[in-house]
Amino acid sequence: MGFSVMTVTDTPRPQLKIRRINLDTGRENVAVISRRSKALRPEVFRGFNRVELRRNSKVLLATLLITDDDTLVGPDDLGLAEPAFHRFAEPVGCFVTVKPAAPTDSLDAVRAKIQGRTLSASEIGAIVEDLVHYRYSDMEIVAFLISSASFMTSEELLALTHSMAEAGTQLKWNRPIIVDKHCIGGIPGNRTSMIIVPIVAAHGLTIPKTSSRAITSPAGTADTMEVLARVDLGVDEMKEVVAACHGCLVWGGHVNLSPADDILISVERALSLDTREQMVASIMSKKIAAGSTHLLIDLPVGPAAKLTSAMQAMRLRKLFEFVGNHFGIEVEVVTTDGRQPIGNGIGPVLESRDVMAVLSNEPEAPTDLREKSLRLAAHLLEYDPQLRGGSGYTRARELLDGGAALKQMQKIIDSQGPTVCRTDLGILTADVPASSDGVISSIDCLRLNRLARTAGAPIDKGAGINIFKKIGDRVEKGEPLYRIYAFDRPEYDLAVAATKADTGYVIDGTQAPVNTAS
Amino acid sequence: MGFSVMTVTDTPRPQLKIRRINLDTGRENVAVISRRSKALRPEVFRGFNRVELRRNSKVLLATLLITDDDTLVGPDDLGLAEPAFHRFAEPVGCFVTVKPAAPTDSLDAVRAKIQGRTLSASEIGAIVEDLVHYRYSDMEIVAFLISSASFMTSEELLALTHSMAEAGTQLKWNRPIIVDKHCIGGIPGNRTSMIIVPIVAAHGLTIPKTSSRAITSPAGTADTMEVLARVDLGVDEMKEVVAACHGCLVWGGHVNLSPADDILISVERALSLDTREQMVASIMSKKIAAGSTHLLIDLPVGPAAKLTSAMQAMRLRKLFEFVGNHFGIEVEVVTTDGRQPIGNGIGPVLESRDVMAVLSNEPEAPTDLREKSLRLAAHLLEYDPQLRGGSGYTRARELLDGGAALKQMQKIIDSQGPTVCRTDLGILTADVPASSDGVISSIDCLRLNRLARTAGAPIDKGAGINIFKKIGDRVEKGEPLYRIYAFDRPEYDLAVAATKADTGYVIDGTQAPVNTAS
Repeated sequence: MGFSVMTVTDTPRPQLKIRRINLDTGRENVAVISRRSKALRPEVFRGFNRVELRRNSKVLLATLLITDDDTLVGPDDLGLAEPAFHRFAEPVGCFVTVKPAAPTDSLDAVRAKIQGRTLSASEIGAIVEDLVHYRYSDMEIVAFLISSASFMTSEELLALTHSMAEAGTQLKWNRPIIVDKHCIGGIPGNRTSMIIVPIVAAHGLTIPKTSSRAITSPAGTADTMEVLARVDLGVDEMKEVVAACHGCLVWGGHVNLSPADDILISVERALSLDTREQMVASIMSKKIAAGSTHLLIDLPVGPAAKLTSAMQAMRLRKLFEFVGNHFGIEVEVVTTDGRQPIGNGIGPVLESRDVMAVLSNEPEAPTDLREKSLRLAAHLLEYDPQLRGGSGYTRARELLDGGAALKQMQKIIDSQGPTVCRTDLGILTADVPASSDGVISSIDCLRLNRLARTAGAPIDKGAGINIFKKIGDRVEKGEPLYRIYAFDRPEYDLAVAATKADTGYVIDGTQAPVNTAS
Repeated sequence: MGFSVMTVTDTPRPQLKIRRINLDTGRENVAVISRRSKALRPEVFRGFNRVELRRNSKVLLATLLITDDDTLVGPDDLGLAEPAFHRFAEPVGCFVTVKPAAPTDSLDAVRAKIQGRTLSASEIGAIVEDLVHYRYSDMEIVAFLISSASFMTSEELLALTHSMAEAGTQLKWNRPIIVDKHCIGGIPGNRTSMIIVPIVAAHGLTIPKTSSRAITSPAGTADTMEVLARVDLGVDEMKEVVAACHGCLVWGGHVNLSPADDILISVERALSLDTREQMVASIMSKKIAAGSTHLLIDLPVGPAAKLTSAMQAMRLRKLFEFVGNHFGIEVEVVTTDGRQPIGNGIGPVLESRDVMAVLSNEPEAPTDLREKSLRLAAHLLEYDPQLRGGSGYTRARELLDGGAALKQMQKIIDSQGPTVCRTDLGILTADVPASSDGVISSIDCLRLNRLARTAGAPIDKGAGINIFKKIGDRVEKGEPLYRIYAFDRPEYDLAVAATKADTGYVIDGTQAPVNTAS
């Protein structure tokens, strides 16, 4: 019998010329193609949504957008939005092939997790691998995050932590004790690291601190430190600073510890999500990669903090201890007062002034920031086998009050190099008054964070809020609660308008002084 | 005591001029702003990610992208990608205010669901309301879908179904019995509706069928019907056709039944997700909105079908029955053979030829499509109180064999109006040969769907696959299994290349005829 032979045509696949589209799409790789593209008609592949670009051995997965505008992207072109253009790293005008992307294999594991299955270590490893290579669309990252938010076994948590720690730089230090501290965040002005690091380093323990920049908060430690010194150090530079000073306060961005964390966290923040296991995996992966041996975790508890009850804090503490134990890190978890901001400033310049006031032992330095820093530093100092048990606090105070910590901070600043940022305060200011007489009974940290952010922090280092009143303080109607600083009129207006709706302060009139009561 | 008075400046917010950006971003509203925008510096709001546009009383939420290219969007402009531009419906050049979007309230409920809380009916209603008004970003839609994928209570399922049904058009019919049928999909070529509707309508029962277009499959019923007639009817036109013919076969897009379903389903498909409760809520919301009183659900079960076991089918059946019961719809669920395609054609033109061959009683008409359609029609006919129990199948065959169904189909086609589509078959063809002698033991429906899609279906009506061999057929090496049809060279090449990797057929050589064995 004779059958018709399949006619396979090996015509070369049409190629498209790369064009660069000046559009910042963040994490996501975005490609733009003409509706009349020579390579494939995008509507045919609409349902698939993702395309695969190839040039020689380079492959990039991207989300596809369609245009009818030839001036943007013509039928012979393939537009790449900025992040995709940089990641693909091929010149404008060179040829690429494009085809509908085969589904990323590790997404099968994400779908299994959605259906309730527990994932193996290798499945989780594959997911993390694809995440850090930008093979997931934003939608796919969300699917992974939410699928694992509601339920993660202990083994899954360990596998996720391990995979994340291995996905980036892994620092090695030739010293037996590497201490570190971490706060889960959410409390405005809480810049204890910038006081703890010089105290602990002045004592002689090694504390190579990397910090994040703020994404949705008005300042991260890296943003505030940047007011005083350069923070964008690479791995080698960071090691030099630590060799010279026993400690550093650098931005983690160039050190590239646990890059999967940066991706997951930016998606979580865009959705205002906070998930317990994810948080523990993120933090611990960074600390494992950083080579920490002894870690202090600060868990602020308060009505507008990330943790709202001692029970929540306890459950989170146990997760940290479990993971630390598994990876051989000595973890100590302390619960702290998260009812209100720490210090007075919210925003990089204002916070850096608080920090320097504490280190310089100025009389007007915020006592809450000083006391909290001393208390946490005391825990870290006691990791020193030479130090007598229970003497950590005394030693910390000695180093702070005697000026050793300030001297160490100056040394760290000198080693990291001078800042290149503007360090002046915002010129547009508004004092926000108490709406009634009484005693301040609560302060909404979330609200103040958002206000300082709206005023321009941390992009404008000198924008933010300076607080005059704390919980328990008596105020009279019209008395300023805090001052807003901004540089830019639209943001200033937005921030001031927001305080009219809600100052973030609750004033209890029943406790008002009798002589001013109505 | 004198306090400084807060200086509130009521400067009008800077406004931006609308520019239209020719970029199809699908569901998602996307706004583009200059990095040097006069209204707000986008980097300050980067973490928030979403902005609110306002003009008079109109409000639009959009995801923000940033550009440095003034020719795209200048500092005084606000770019709106096509879908956002159409939804905002304000002219180019008019002024809008823009500010960081306050978090959508109903997202709090989504976050609560992620944390494991059960949602109230009003919370679910608010989510659906925001969904259909395009207030959710794609990432937020995914968060909702996944949060409810792993666990949904009966009450949540009912509330979701109810909210979705109420969110769009709700059809009313002044007749006691309105029958409908629905297949959960996944089986190529399964165009039974186009045979069942004329049979049931010829009998005199009312069956106002709306169908979807394919998103990731090579054809939906609406795509295939469009080869024969106009399908984009509005509500009034649809009612006229039903009044004249007892039935119709129209696209649901202009009827706007359960628009939330269209949004959720497009996200699910982009992620290749299929979640049980979501599926039931989607289908039932459409049927409630369509005014159905009696509903037949077709659940194909097979290794590459959406349901892979009888147990899965049973659990899904119970969900359909539960929801139907609650909303007063008589639901009957049948499990069918989902191991392989139904009929021979995959793709609109090829499928429409199968359908017309069955309706015309042509000898070469695919018997599996005929038998399945008769069987399902029999169930629907028995909803007629006049019909004697057990005689549904005989009656269905009578209407089909006697030509009444064909006549009714012609009437429906005439009432809906002539098609405006090309109805010729693809000119590029390739026969895909068996790789060995043997008996066909399985056919991968997903694979064939994707192949037909890659060849251009359903955008090219005449693209797709025509199957020559089914499970149990003996083949010789080189004998064609199916023929690919395409119009466009790149897609043709992609499809042919894909068959080389995997034809989608498994041939069992041990059952090969002895005389051809090696």
